[in-house]
Amino acid sequence: MTRMITVGLIGRSARPGEQLPPALLDASEEIGRHVANAGAALITGGTGGVMEASSRGAKSAGGLTVGFLPYGDAERANAYVDLVFPTGMGTLRNVLTARVCHSLIMIGGGVGTLNELTVAYDAGVPVVALEGLGGWSDRLRETLYDGCYLDERRVLPVSFAATPHEAVEIALRRADEPRSGSKLEALTGWAGG
Amino acid sequence: MTRMITVGLIGRSARPGEQLPPALLDASEEIGRHVANAGAALITGGTGGVMEASSRGAKSAGGLTVGFLPYGDAERANAYVDLVFPTGMGTLRNVLTARVCHSLIMIGGGVGTLNELTVAYDAGVPVVALEGLGGWSDRLRETLYDGCYLDERRVLPVSFAATPHEAVEIALRRADEPRSGSKLEALTGWAGG
Amino acid sequence: MTRMITVGLIGRSARPGEQLPPALLDASEEIGRHVANAGAALITGGTGGVMEASSRGAKSAGGLTVGFLPYGDAERANAYVDLVFPTGMGTLRNVLTARVCHSLIMIGGGVGTLNELTVAYDAGVPVVALEGLGGWSDRLRETLYDGCYLDERRVLPVSFAATPHEAVEIALRRADEPRSGSKLEALTGWAGG
Amino acid sequence: MTRMITVGLIGRSARPGEQLPPALLDASEEIGRHVANAGAALITGGTGGVMEASSRGAKSAGGLTVGFLPYGDAERANAYVDLVFPTGMGTLRNVLTARVCHSLIMIGGGVGTLNELTVAYDAGVPVVALEGLGGWSDRLRETLYDGCYLDERRVLPVSFAATPHEAVEIALRRADEPRSGSKLEALTGWAGG
Repeated sequence: MTRMITVGLIGRSARPGEQLPPALLDASEEIGRHVANAGAALITGGTGGVMEASSRGAKSAGGLTVGFLPYGDAERANAYVDLVFPTGMGTLRNVLTARVCHSLIMIGGGVGTLNELTVAYDAGVPVVALEGLGGWSDRLRETLYDGCYLDERRVLPVSFAATPHEAVEIALRRADEPRSGSKLEALTGWAGG
Repeated sequence: MTRMITVGLIGRSARPGEQLPPALLDASEEIGRHVANAGAALITGGTGGVMEASSRGAKSAGGLTVGFLPYGDAERANAYVDLVFPTGMGTLRNVLTARVCHSLIMIGGGVGTLNELTVAYDAGVPVVALEGLGGWSDRLRETLYDGCYLDERRVLPVSFAATPHEAVEIALRRADEPRSGSKLEALTGWAGG
Repeated sequence: MTRMITVGLIGRSARPGEQLPPALLDASEEIGRHVANAGAALITGGTGGVMEASSRGAKSAGGLTVGFLPYGDAERANAYVDLVFPTGMGTLRNVLTARVCHSLIMIGGGVGTLNELTVAYDAGVPVVALEGLGGWSDRLRETLYDGCYLDERRVLPVSFAATPHEAVEIALRRADEPRSGSKLEALTGWAGG
Repeated sequence: MTRMITVGLIGRSARPGEQLPPALLDASEEIGRHVANAGAALITGGTGGVMEASSRGAKSAGGLTVGFLPYGDAERANAYVDLVFPTGMGTLRNVLTARVCHSLIMIGGGVGTLNELTVAYDAGVPVVALEGLGGWSDRLRETLYDGCYLDERRVLPVSFAATPHEAVEIALRRADEPRSGSKLEALTGWAGG
């Protein structure tokens, strides 16, 4: 084969004692299944919550799953990750997940997920937000420039999806998009903050 | 002496051919002056725009300025940085500026500045947004949870200021705040995304 | 499946205009083949030289290959990488390759490879050096403490192999080793330099 | 003002329960004093051992000291650091200390110090090893190519010094050296490992 398409899923794990909404986990699992059925690899942060649910979905469909752990200890990955990468980088590993995929699907999401969205935009990685399940994914339309851009340059739009299936369809289509990273760099003097 | 207070300023450089608004640069310069007059060190990303203007202000008041460059080449710092740190880390250096200060002042700001805000929140570093000069600093009130929090946990509020002087006053006061970093970690299982 | 064994290969790419010794490339290719035949994933830096040769070997045996590129542009990976991760981190990506595998094989090697060896030791990742092909791999025995340790604590020995086959055998055996990372941390106050 | 010379000191902290040799600490303190007397800023990793001793020396001579902590908690810096930067990056912060200075002095040193030496070489930062106090600083002559280079390209020699005073003299002289970073990149296709 060589050159798999990589689709990342970004969103929250549960906090200690917290129960994430079943609808959020079901949608994550369905996303994982669709990604796997399309022959793409699913990339996550490797821990719990939507990362675990989506990885379980991908494995149930025979897919390949990758997890970039914040920890240095591989044992802390969820049970559905094939390739565990214990980066030991703490939250710096957000940079990895957000930069290295062909495209990303965002679901729910707290401040860490918002962080990953800004990293992806900077790197030219297309993001699809699945709406209707709370968190930052539901706050983007009213927040972003023209409802889809992270800054005034309006270079790389965030896409929106209403169902897991649609989210994966868009993510796969946008995976082919030429990375606007270098374009962004040229336009912005990327070091500017 | 030993143990200087460090106040970071986050905001944009100009893109090639772009002229930043004079009001934005004037406010940045004034922030730098106030930081220096208070005996605190001014920390920036070391390049142009608001970083250069604030560093110029700090130097005009005899202050100490630090710049964390994205480049590996120290020559690319602006002329008003005393301690140039050429990290060679690209936009990963955003993480540094946002994490290592006692408090941060945000002014204007594009996607890189929003990225730094999310990093600061995650690390427990208080941020003061100076309003009225455009960019993300002017979009936060309507965007954040309860107008000041970056996620539902509502742990570390963003402060708002109407003038450079007020921004520095708040930043200095909040510099004494115990870092909520470890608290955040305990609350959230910080690796969760 | 879930939980693949990951074996990393560290060593040099060719400099512009340089021709790496055929024996070095042949050995790398053979290493890749053995890793794949054992059902393990081959992890490299994704560029040329020994990274390309080993990935070609792994693919010829139907294996799975991963490449952590220093670049932000996935197009710059060699042709034999299945999962291309364009980190955009520059040489900081050395940290990744060296930390995230179950074990590493070192072959030839310049200063970047020596850097990866120090990172692996710090993270508790076992390294096997294939001797007889030049570079730092051939300089370790006379350099290290007791011929195999990177510092006086003598915690994690470097192994040596005389053939590609032996190198992979040892790497697979040591992949099961419990990570001494936390032990190292306890022993050393890991922040100590 | 503006554009201070930055001299970094790399070497070990004590492990829990360990007592570092007084001669090592005395030499570190003297290095700090000389750096301060020359008007340069002293950059360290901010923790104990040679980092604390050198910072104490620099402060006793009225110098400016900077510490790049591995921790996210500034309280863990030693008492003699003016500008504490709690990076929260763990041992990744080695990269910072080693890259961002005009030149480095290496004293004693374990595997972390060797790691920093490889990073400095890659970034084109000149290193002076103070000999006679054990650790990797005393192992370099017999280890390196031609007794002073970290790889076969022989681009950036390590200097050696017999006394703290000589070490600082050489470090200050080499601080003016144009960074060979870009040259290294051109020569090597820097991503090569």
